[in-house]
Amino acid sequence: MGGEPEKWILMLTARTPTNIAVIKYWGKRDETLILPINDSISVTLDPGHLCTTTTVSVSPSFDHDRMWLNGKEISLQGGRFQSCLREIRARAQDVEDKKKGIQIKKEDWQKLHLHIASYNNFPTAAGLASSAAGLACLVFSLSKLMNLKEDNSQLSAIARQGSGSACRSLYGGFVKWVMGKEDNGSDSLAIQLVDEKHWDELVIIIAVVSARQKETSSTSGMRDTVETSGLIQHRAKEVVPKRVVQMEDAIQNRDFPSFARLTCTDSNQFHAVCLDTYPPIFYMNDTSHRIINCVEKWNRAEGMPQVAYTFDAGPNAVMIARNRKTAALLLQRLLYNFPPQSDTDLDSYVIGDKSILKDAGIKDMKDVEALTPPPEVKDSTSLTQKSKGDVNYFICTRPGGGPVVLSDETQALLDPLTGLPK
Amino acid sequence: MGGEPEKWILMLTARTPTNIAVIKYWGKRDETLILPINDSISVTLDPGHLCTTTTVSVSPSFDHDRMWLNGKEISLQGGRFQSCLREIRARAQDVEDKKKGIQIKKEDWQKLHLHIASYNNFPTAAGLASSAAGLACLVFSLSKLMNLKEDNSQLSAIARQGSGSACRSLYGGFVKWVMGKEDNGSDSLAIQLVDEKHWDELVIIIAVVSARQKETSSTSGMRDTVETSGLIQHRAKEVVPKRVVQMEDAIQNRDFPSFARLTCTDSNQFHAVCLDTYPPIFYMNDTSHRIINCVEKWNRAEGMPQVAYTFDAGPNAVMIARNRKTAALLLQRLLYNFPPQSDTDLDSYVIGDKSILKDAGIKDMKDVEALTPPPEVKDSTSLTQKSKGDVNYFICTRPGGGPVVLSDETQALLDPLTGLPK
Repeated sequence: MGGEPEKWILMLTARTPTNIAVIKYWGKRDETLILPINDSISVTLDPGHLCTTTTVSVSPSFDHDRMWLNGKEISLQGGRFQSCLREIRARAQDVEDKKKGIQIKKEDWQKLHLHIASYNNFPTAAGLASSAAGLACLVFSLSKLMNLKEDNSQLSAIARQGSGSACRSLYGGFVKWVMGKEDNGSDSLAIQLVDEKHWDELVIIIAVVSARQKETSSTSGMRDTVETSGLIQHRAKEVVPKRVVQMEDAIQNRDFPSFARLTCTDSNQFHAVCLDTYPPIFYMNDTSHRIINCVEKWNRAEGMPQVAYTFDAGPNAVMIARNRKTAALLLQRLLYNFPPQSDTDLDSYVIGDKSILKDAGIKDMKDVEALTPPPEVKDSTSLTQKSKGDVNYFICTRPGGGPVVLSDETQALLDPLTGLPK
Repeated sequence: MGGEPEKWILMLTARTPTNIAVIKYWGKRDETLILPINDSISVTLDPGHLCTTTTVSVSPSFDHDRMWLNGKEISLQGGRFQSCLREIRARAQDVEDKKKGIQIKKEDWQKLHLHIASYNNFPTAAGLASSAAGLACLVFSLSKLMNLKEDNSQLSAIARQGSGSACRSLYGGFVKWVMGKEDNGSDSLAIQLVDEKHWDELVIIIAVVSARQKETSSTSGMRDTVETSGLIQHRAKEVVPKRVVQMEDAIQNRDFPSFARLTCTDSNQFHAVCLDTYPPIFYMNDTSHRIINCVEKWNRAEGMPQVAYTFDAGPNAVMIARNRKTAALLLQRLLYNFPPQSDTDLDSYVIGDKSILKDAGIKDMKDVEALTPPPEVKDSTSLTQKSKGDVNYFICTRPGGGPVVLSDETQALLDPLTGLPK
């Protein structure tokens, strides 16, 4: 071990995207290794709007592994963190930083301790797959710090052991988590189907929906589903394999109608098996249902899908519009049906890529109030009422790229001298 | 044709119960004959609280078939009404009323016209299977007027062609609709499993839930499910047949835990296949979900089911309590979680068998306001808020008997001299 003895700190910062499944992962065949009962496919979201940034650091002066999430220290004792740390340390290589005069031999990594700070640029509790981005970023940043030789696909198999869907955050674009066959999980990993440039017309709008009920964690939820649902095995064995093939084709061919149909039906079927669980699990609420009805009505009126929707283990809607034009029309419809509460300003109600708002011709709250019912709503006195506050805010984004190392040291979350959060 | 020519009116009034499925019917294999893709099992509800009363009359002075529902004339031209009328007329027999001096030969029924008046003692629009009771009552009352030799099971196969679930309203107690195998539907009919005295401890509480959304009709809903769901065939072929056997056992043995488990899981699975339909169908809303969570939490706390719940094609909850004592405890919980709006009086908020309210120790609105959280609710500051007005009213009832002819002529809905609604 070189450098100024006991004083040096080696540090690296990386950023990893979140992802949303368009063919859903629900149900494990191995709880510890996190091996799924079916393949899944996701789209990576632009890290400019939704991502985790993680700084990892190592120093002989650190006396135990520590981690801070959004500035608050959290325990690393959980089995899933421990699995990831163990797997990464086992693959660590020699590291040399000539500029700083630091040399670390691969066997040293077993004794050295880590400080890790992680930050989500979106609310952790909003149900936006923060654990996926977080675990992926932990694994990715540590692999770079420790100079691992593994490629992102091999790293995904480590991230998978931290949080199943994290494995899909190791790539940009469209990603497939291959369920694999091996008992040890070595072939259960993510591969990139296409990168984010392949289908760059797509625009994604997320509705962060207010939840009145506490939600079932996805870990216990999917365990209950596998144990009690009479439909989940049929879904995993008969339905999903066909859909995965069709979805890969739809993505390769940029076939939006097929993509939308598969995305929507697979989201609905995931929520169906949740409902078929005993006791039943409800992730979608009345607001989620109204968003679906709004999109379905519009798609039907247009005679072909304009927008796909998908919901994870919570009430938030992720809507994928075929292009910027439909995204602007979608945003008009969403703001018409789900206006903000009177004390909310537009700037905090629609966040992310604000240019969609501009395309929709909406500059301020007066423009929102002036929105007229879309043509597909024939009966404006319908039972479906507008109610303010059902949606907390909207995020406009797009498919995005995979993990990157941030070379700009000012973006580090840890102090380079103390190794503690800035 | 005898009697005073062209002047006489022969009239008969009958009352038929409604029913709620505990193993659900969803999906037809023949749309015209209304043949289902699986067996179903229902409990008949006490006609004292929920029933249809129908008066049927025949007279040579009537020049066409006419029908009034809840006082308003409706068309009989629909294929389903026509199927029932055709099937019944084809089986009509000679009728003689010596007192009135009326004689009708069976061949006369093809030429004679009918006046029919029907009345539900509960709101038609409340989603409480009014069409089941209505069609059953139409078929039952006409069969008596026309002196049919068919038993109730054979009549059920006629009622089935009017409204599938109507066939189960031909008997009291617990009833099975056998799906049958014949293409002509002759063996798709209802049989009584046990009468209403077999398991007379059960108490039923119905929550009539406010709906914000217009609902999908069950006819088009189940057609869409059969055409688009990837799970419905697995349910019909693999899951339901086993549950039907288990449910018959549970009913025979008055095994409440098994009965409750089967009832709840089958209701949930029915709603799961609705969600797996494209576009998805949502019958339950947030209030329905909260009712389920309330019941599930209590059942779990007691270590064994106290209450079963089931939902048809709408948000209303039908809860079946194992006995009067649990029903009173259930009503306390329901009134605690779903209090009436301040301008509602208790007498119109809890209707039907008011003795359950008395057992619950609730005499007036002050007693409702004084209700404390049940012991299973540990965190009274939980996210689940009480909100007034989510439930329109509760109906307390019990399993009940089958169709009966009402001999009291004052209960007739048609004027005996004019044949028009009173």
